[in-house]
Amino acid sequence: MQLSRYLPILDWGRRYDGGTAASDLLAAVIVTIMLIPQSLAYAMLAGLPPQIGLYASIAPLVAYALFGTSRTLAVGPVAVVSLMTAAAASKVGLAGSPEYIGATIALAFLSGAFLLAIGVFRLGFLANFLSHPVISGFITASGLLIAASQLKHLLGVPAEGDTLVELVGSLAGSIRAFSLPTAIIGLGGLAFLFWSRRGLQPLLQKLGLAARAAGMLAKAGPVLVVAASTFAVWALDLDEHGVRTVGEIPQGLPQLTLPAVDLGAWTALALPAVLLSIVGFVESVSVAQTLAAKRRQRIDPDQELVALGASNLGSAFSGGFPVAGGFARSVVNFDAGAETPAAGAYTAVGIALAALFLTPLIHDLPNATLAATIIVAVLSLVDLTSLSRTWRYSKTDFSAMAATILLTLAMGVEAGIVAGVGLSLAFYLYRGSRPHVAIVGRVPGTEHFRNILRHQVETVPGILTIRVDESLFFANARYLEDTVYDLVAQNKSIRHLVLMCSAVNEVDASALESLETINARLKDAAVTFHLSEVKGPVMDRLQRSHFLHVLTGNVYLSQHEAVSMLRAQLEAERPLDPKASFGADI
Amino acid sequence: MQLSRYLPILDWGRRYDGGTAASDLLAAVIVTIMLIPQSLAYAMLAGLPPQIGLYASIAPLVAYALFGTSRTLAVGPVAVVSLMTAAAASKVGLAGSPEYIGATIALAFLSGAFLLAIGVFRLGFLANFLSHPVISGFITASGLLIAASQLKHLLGVPAEGDTLVELVGSLAGSIRAFSLPTAIIGLGGLAFLFWSRRGLQPLLQKLGLAARAAGMLAKAGPVLVVAASTFAVWALDLDEHGVRTVGEIPQGLPQLTLPAVDLGAWTALALPAVLLSIVGFVESVSVAQTLAAKRRQRIDPDQELVALGASNLGSAFSGGFPVAGGFARSVVNFDAGAETPAAGAYTAVGIALAALFLTPLIHDLPNATLAATIIVAVLSLVDLTSLSRTWRYSKTDFSAMAATILLTLAMGVEAGIVAGVGLSLAFYLYRGSRPHVAIVGRVPGTEHFRNILRHQVETVPGILTIRVDESLFFANARYLEDTVYDLVAQNKSIRHLVLMCSAVNEVDASALESLETINARLKDAAVTFHLSEVKGPVMDRLQRSHFLHVLTGNVYLSQHEAVSMLRAQLEAERPLDPKASFGADI
Repeated sequence: MQLSRYLPILDWGRRYDGGTAASDLLAAVIVTIMLIPQSLAYAMLAGLPPQIGLYASIAPLVAYALFGTSRTLAVGPVAVVSLMTAAAASKVGLAGSPEYIGATIALAFLSGAFLLAIGVFRLGFLANFLSHPVISGFITASGLLIAASQLKHLLGVPAEGDTLVELVGSLAGSIRAFSLPTAIIGLGGLAFLFWSRRGLQPLLQKLGLAARAAGMLAKAGPVLVVAASTFAVWALDLDEHGVRTVGEIPQGLPQLTLPAVDLGAWTALALPAVLLSIVGFVESVSVAQTLAAKRRQRIDPDQELVALGASNLGSAFSGGFPVAGGFARSVVNFDAGAETPAAGAYTAVGIALAALFLTPLIHDLPNATLAATIIVAVLSLVDLTSLSRTWRYSKTDFSAMAATILLTLAMGVEAGIVAGVGLSLAFYLYRGSRPHVAIVGRVPGTEHFRNILRHQVETVPGILTIRVDESLFFANARYLEDTVYDLVAQNKSIRHLVLMCSAVNEVDASALESLETINARLKDAAVTFHLSEVKGPVMDRLQRSHFLHVLTGNVYLSQHEAVSMLRAQLEAERPLDPKASFGADI
Repeated sequence: MQLSRYLPILDWGRRYDGGTAASDLLAAVIVTIMLIPQSLAYAMLAGLPPQIGLYASIAPLVAYALFGTSRTLAVGPVAVVSLMTAAAASKVGLAGSPEYIGATIALAFLSGAFLLAIGVFRLGFLANFLSHPVISGFITASGLLIAASQLKHLLGVPAEGDTLVELVGSLAGSIRAFSLPTAIIGLGGLAFLFWSRRGLQPLLQKLGLAARAAGMLAKAGPVLVVAASTFAVWALDLDEHGVRTVGEIPQGLPQLTLPAVDLGAWTALALPAVLLSIVGFVESVSVAQTLAAKRRQRIDPDQELVALGASNLGSAFSGGFPVAGGFARSVVNFDAGAETPAAGAYTAVGIALAALFLTPLIHDLPNATLAATIIVAVLSLVDLTSLSRTWRYSKTDFSAMAATILLTLAMGVEAGIVAGVGLSLAFYLYRGSRPHVAIVGRVPGTEHFRNILRHQVETVPGILTIRVDESLFFANARYLEDTVYDLVAQNKSIRHLVLMCSAVNEVDASALESLETINARLKDAAVTFHLSEVKGPVMDRLQRSHFLHVLTGNVYLSQHEAVSMLRAQLEAERPLDPKASFGADI
């Protein structure tokens, strides 16, 4: 049992039969066809020779098949991680140089080791500190950045840059030198791909295909464009008219490589490796969870870390670059009927065959076509509507999202993601330090107590109840003190102060000191201090301190009990004073 | 009104009269006598010539009198800030060198500018992120570190080091070379000072002094030791027998100095300046608040930032070093009857007179005596009982405290405080990411709902209510999803799931997406999703999203209302099924 948790293949492998194998094989064929151009394109995006894209689609897939818990996640090179790889490696050397390739292998190795480590120590929850708006903003900005970075291939002009500003500036300077045949292939491919996302399936259905087959075939639009443009270059000798192509690719399988141990370079690559690992993990788990839920399966995020770690180590040892679970190809894998991770292993075999036998055929594949497939893929990730939705819902979430987008575009992917996470944590801490505090009274006819400013409620003179809507901890302990003193100073007639703790999930040592100080000062002011609705875990801890011994008042199970008892007490104390008749008020 | 907020002197100055002036003057005389040896000692602790201690006790006091809101806080050089100053400046140059002195002036300037800036932008709440256990641990460790650093002066041996390990190692190597007359003066002074803290006041009372006068005079113990040891050195020519003394001090007032603008050095000093500013601010505000509370006065923490910023700028421009409000001297000021910040200005005049006329008298003051006064002062700050108290109350608070102490001792003050703050924030975030979740039922005979594991409560079959004890935000959004799916998977008979939101103070955009996902998945599983006890501010925000339009169930004002309505609904649906009689259960 324990072993199959770390090697899920032991679990599903036991029940593997011919029917499952047939489904997996079909899915693998379809994903292979889709993955070949994607692998070449994302290698180009990462600044690497095309065959490295194929290498990164073999060993990692086998590793994931052994360790992964998702039945349908398809791993390999993905757009955002490839962009982050390029940004990090370009600090080490010129794109395509041996140092650069060494850096991408080192990134895959560091990323694999990091993911494996946090998976083994079950620290996957750390990824939760990437909030949805930050992820969404980051993906949107990366999509725009990637699209901009591909315009040079699309138009056949030289341009460089890591940020949108640099890219646009560089493009503006060189755009007059564009190559007409390249631009025709690039823009034509782009137009076809955009159209095919919506228009191809209905057309194929009109031509007589079944809806399912038409839908599947429509997703092969990029393959069509690849074939057509490669044929055009070959037939018209366009590579002699300025159209850049993939060119000579060494035929054969990847060799075993060992990442060069260079502590200096590793130090520089460590932070980028951590960031791209987290981004890749978040993308993979989101996809895996969405797909698992559709079939009522479950995935284990910590084991996913192990699996993605193994995939990246596999990539590093076979000359590849950082990989993750891809969104589009996993959906295709799922739709094509993949039932187990074995489909991924079969896909690896397919890619290996392509590396062995297919590379001469793609000699004439134009870079502009690859750029067009990248642009279409990443622009589908750009989600500007979530900006306005988030703006309406929460200004702080929007600020974190906007900062992520702006910094990613202006200063690069690492700055963007660090700023987004930092800002969302800062907002969270700030909120905790300034909690909402309400004075509450009883909703008539019930035992329920609500904010006197929002509801028509009943209160008892002499008793003030405040509800603090936050755990009490170091960052708001002093704020609580100030709030209580202000309220008591404003209400001179108070005899009892009840702190309603329904939203207090924790009282740390700093807040305990503040409660003791409040208790002592209220005692000096002849106000008795009570607590109500203290939760079990909080009460357990308070009982280990001496606060409950010095507390001037009591701890009541419910707010209703507190007010009933204190009201009876006040009435008993001053039964003859006609002004002090509390009966009319509650 | 607005102006007097920034210049509190406009407020209290208007009501200033002869009686107040007399009280302030008396307090100023007593504080001046106490402050002279302290200023010299803390300058020595900071690695600076003694006169700089006096300079730092003139302009800063005047600045605080203009801007401060505490009536009794006495500012000037303080132990922990002096230690931090020494640690930071020693990175720039050798103690006492012109570069070193320049660095301490730069630290005062940067600290002043930082405090002023966060005061003007009212960011004083940032200091709340230093939790009490971290402050307490830091003060305790600094006290030990300072005491250890003074042993060399006490025994007359050479020793160097920034951490306890370095100091102890260095002392162990040189201790055999100790100077006998120095050690007699140092250890004798130490013994007298320790004794005088408890024994002097009763003795003086026995000799016929009134309790109040005896108490006041007993606090002048350090002055007695200073006078006696200086006389002994002068009379016995001990400075020719290896006793190091304060020596020649330039007579006169401080000159106007301009901090040297050196961006390289400023970058290195920026973080230490921020840290020592925050530590000094926290110490000052704690003292000021404690004293203000005793007289039912209030202080304004943001204006205190402005005042301490002005004090530090004053120190920088008069050749001083970073200052803060001191604990012991503020208490003396308070006890001596100071009524307004004018007492501080009078003290500044007293120190100025000392700088002009008294310096020849302290030529023979032994360093060992100053070391003894420092050791006694800082050891009173060491509080080891709070370690065991914190251990009993909270293991996480204890860890933060222990890490602060260990790192301060082993790696220095900056590492200690950064680790303490980092760790307490990390624990806070971790807690938020793994909230306590309880299934709740009704306490019999009430409308109050509590954890079924801790209380004898009633539940209704078919209705599951969970209470999440935390705001819903990015770090726990996925955890919430997992928890809900697990609970629903375990309880196949559930028809309604109620999320009781009494402890939910915030639902951010990430958590909103999770709620939408939960709603959709529960819908697929034929479970209706409800909310209860949603707070006003949270509801306001939910109403701006489309979640309430897709929610399969309702939002109930109270948990009791939710269960009553849903139970009636379940009974109405299956009135004839005898197994479905819910009446017996609630």
